[in-house]
Amino acid sequence: MTTDRLVAFTDGVIAILITIMVLELKPPAGTGIGDLHTVVPKLLAYLLSFVLVGIYWINHHHLFHVVEKIDGAVLWSNMALLFSLSLVSLATAWFGEHPGSTGPVFWYAIVQLLCAISYTLMTISLLRLHDPESRLAKAIGDDRKGKWSMLAYVVSVPISLVAPAITVAIIAGVAIAWFVPDRRVSRVLD
Amino acid sequence: MTTDRLVAFTDGVIAILITIMVLELKPPAGTGIGDLHTVVPKLLAYLLSFVLVGIYWINHHHLFHVVEKIDGAVLWSNMALLFSLSLVSLATAWFGEHPGSTGPVFWYAIVQLLCAISYTLMTISLLRLHDPESRLAKAIGDDRKGKWSMLAYVVSVPISLVAPAITVAIIAGVAIAWFVPDRRVSRVLD
Amino acid sequence: MTTDRLVAFTDGVIAILITIMVLELKPPAGTGIGDLHTVVPKLLAYLLSFVLVGIYWINHHHLFHVVEKIDGAVLWSNMALLFSLSLVSLATAWFGEHPGSTGPVFWYAIVQLLCAISYTLMTISLLRLHDPESRLAKAIGDDRKGKWSMLAYVVSVPISLVAPAITVAIIAGVAIAWFVPDRRVSRVLD
Amino acid sequence: MTTDRLVAFTDGVIAILITIMVLELKPPAGTGIGDLHTVVPKLLAYLLSFVLVGIYWINHHHLFHVVEKIDGAVLWSNMALLFSLSLVSLATAWFGEHPGSTGPVFWYAIVQLLCAISYTLMTISLLRLHDPESRLAKAIGDDRKGKWSMLAYVVSVPISLVAPAITVAIIAGVAIAWFVPDRRVSRVLD
Repeated sequence: MTTDRLVAFTDGVIAILITIMVLELKPPAGTGIGDLHTVVPKLLAYLLSFVLVGIYWINHHHLFHVVEKIDGAVLWSNMALLFSLSLVSLATAWFGEHPGSTGPVFWYAIVQLLCAISYTLMTISLLRLHDPESRLAKAIGDDRKGKWSMLAYVVSVPISLVAPAITVAIIAGVAIAWFVPDRRVSRVLD
Repeated sequence: MTTDRLVAFTDGVIAILITIMVLELKPPAGTGIGDLHTVVPKLLAYLLSFVLVGIYWINHHHLFHVVEKIDGAVLWSNMALLFSLSLVSLATAWFGEHPGSTGPVFWYAIVQLLCAISYTLMTISLLRLHDPESRLAKAIGDDRKGKWSMLAYVVSVPISLVAPAITVAIIAGVAIAWFVPDRRVSRVLD
Repeated sequence: MTTDRLVAFTDGVIAILITIMVLELKPPAGTGIGDLHTVVPKLLAYLLSFVLVGIYWINHHHLFHVVEKIDGAVLWSNMALLFSLSLVSLATAWFGEHPGSTGPVFWYAIVQLLCAISYTLMTISLLRLHDPESRLAKAIGDDRKGKWSMLAYVVSVPISLVAPAITVAIIAGVAIAWFVPDRRVSRVLD
Repeated sequence: MTTDRLVAFTDGVIAILITIMVLELKPPAGTGIGDLHTVVPKLLAYLLSFVLVGIYWINHHHLFHVVEKIDGAVLWSNMALLFSLSLVSLATAWFGEHPGSTGPVFWYAIVQLLCAISYTLMTISLLRLHDPESRLAKAIGDDRKGKWSMLAYVVSVPISLVAPAITVAIIAGVAIAWFVPDRRVSRVLD
């Protein structure tokens, strides 16, 4: 199992995931411009998910630029990441339908947490394989941003039980914080 | 983030987008040849969208042949292009169902405009990164065709409120104008 | 537009097309083994289409092994092939639902004919670009198999109006005839 | 037909297959956290199928690392594998809906058996092409794990008629046994 192939397969799955979410968007029943408003909440949910998945793709690429070797643990934590990302599609469909309800927001936050956990597991598996002086180890550093995101997701899950809107705000906030590609890795690359 | 990877990911997403549109086409309820006519307007809408997305793919490729470097702005304007292109699927489903109605045609024109805007933003981001004497800058030139297309889309949106058929004609006209691969870039490549 | 990219994009689209056809297969309503029989005709239709699309993929690859250059005509006839192949999905869904009815079989035959025509147009565009002494020209030769297939499809369309079963038999027969990869191209490659 | 292209196409199809299974998961009708429980059995079925298909992808890659040449028999047995894997999607949808019923479990086991048979046929085709002293022949060895899996699937099919739960346990057991990448091939690679 070479790194190139893992990256190519991951790219393929993410390209499909980010695209099939649009299949959950159904055209309005009416034919007036006003009927578009029924699609707007789903469209915004799709936009949020598109950006979140896009960020994983970008960070994954920045990370794998400095990966020297992989093993079974990296492979399966990467599979866990792909599985978690695939659930974003289902979560977006439910959340887009009922953007203010507890259940869908709770589930949306859980899925984001699953993605963050599997990404972190992958990072740990990679760190274990690489020298502390390697470019990868330096690039990841203390992973402050990753830890803060994880904490934000952990907090956002129970909050959804009382105030779903705050959960959505937290998740959108994390998205904005990650919008800029990971500078730690970029720095090492330059 | 290398240029190659951005191009490969873009190719993957566009290949999926152009293909899943066909999933919106449902077989007729009847079993006679005459029942096919219920599918015809959707089929024509799909054909128009297939050509429009195909043109973006071709122009994207011609453009990236002469790209020397990319940055975060290029990356995210490319993501905005992919997001906009993914909405073509939804717009086609609605438009194919009601090809003469205001709402669907309005939305179809809006989506085309979004695609054109994000493509233009990507072009501007690329120009900012490259030398005015670079092959890319020469290839893009004054981008007359791009500006005319953008103007056509801008005009086609309000027109849909009074005469949807003219909006469809304008969009089809832009498609025909772009049918031939971008000569400006081809010229430089030769 | 390089040949490599055209082939990679074509591969991507065909991989998606051949796969999404399975989405048209819906699980039976019941839960007994006997309920599977409701899926059988659709499964056979899917198998036939899978083989037909698979053959196009294989022949496309054999052909592009000996391609030296492409132009806009090749590019767009290839796009026409992809568009035609994408209609196989819709045709399979209708045909699998009503395997003995005139409409679906007629449409299935029309789509096969469209695929054959666009493939032939692509072959002609390629021949025009290459020297008569080129490996491509020798590999294609007089294209007897292609001409016979086209004739079979042309004949199968009107036959569907009176005897759909014969049309299905003709199409299945063409599939069997193409099952073996194109020896003309293989011969030149060896 | 080069080995690289066969592998790339296979990767593409598997990436799509493993991803579109998530489209069968529909959001719950309600909006409470409790409504999630209606999705749980389907989610577990999807997880099992994701792992099973993932294992095929991993083993396919390990195997093709030591492949030196392919022929038509390898090509078509690989196509048969892709076709069988594509049926996992349909089987998962039915099985996830009725995880304890005879019909869906029977069909799920049949599909797993089809995948195992086509993978074995591909292995045999490859062995026939390669020298008994080749890395491939050594890597495959006596294929004890493959034979045991096949036997397990063969047994699991009739068992589903009387005790579907045991069939599911057997299939999950095979998945766990294959979870670790094939050491035979890894050993030779190192």
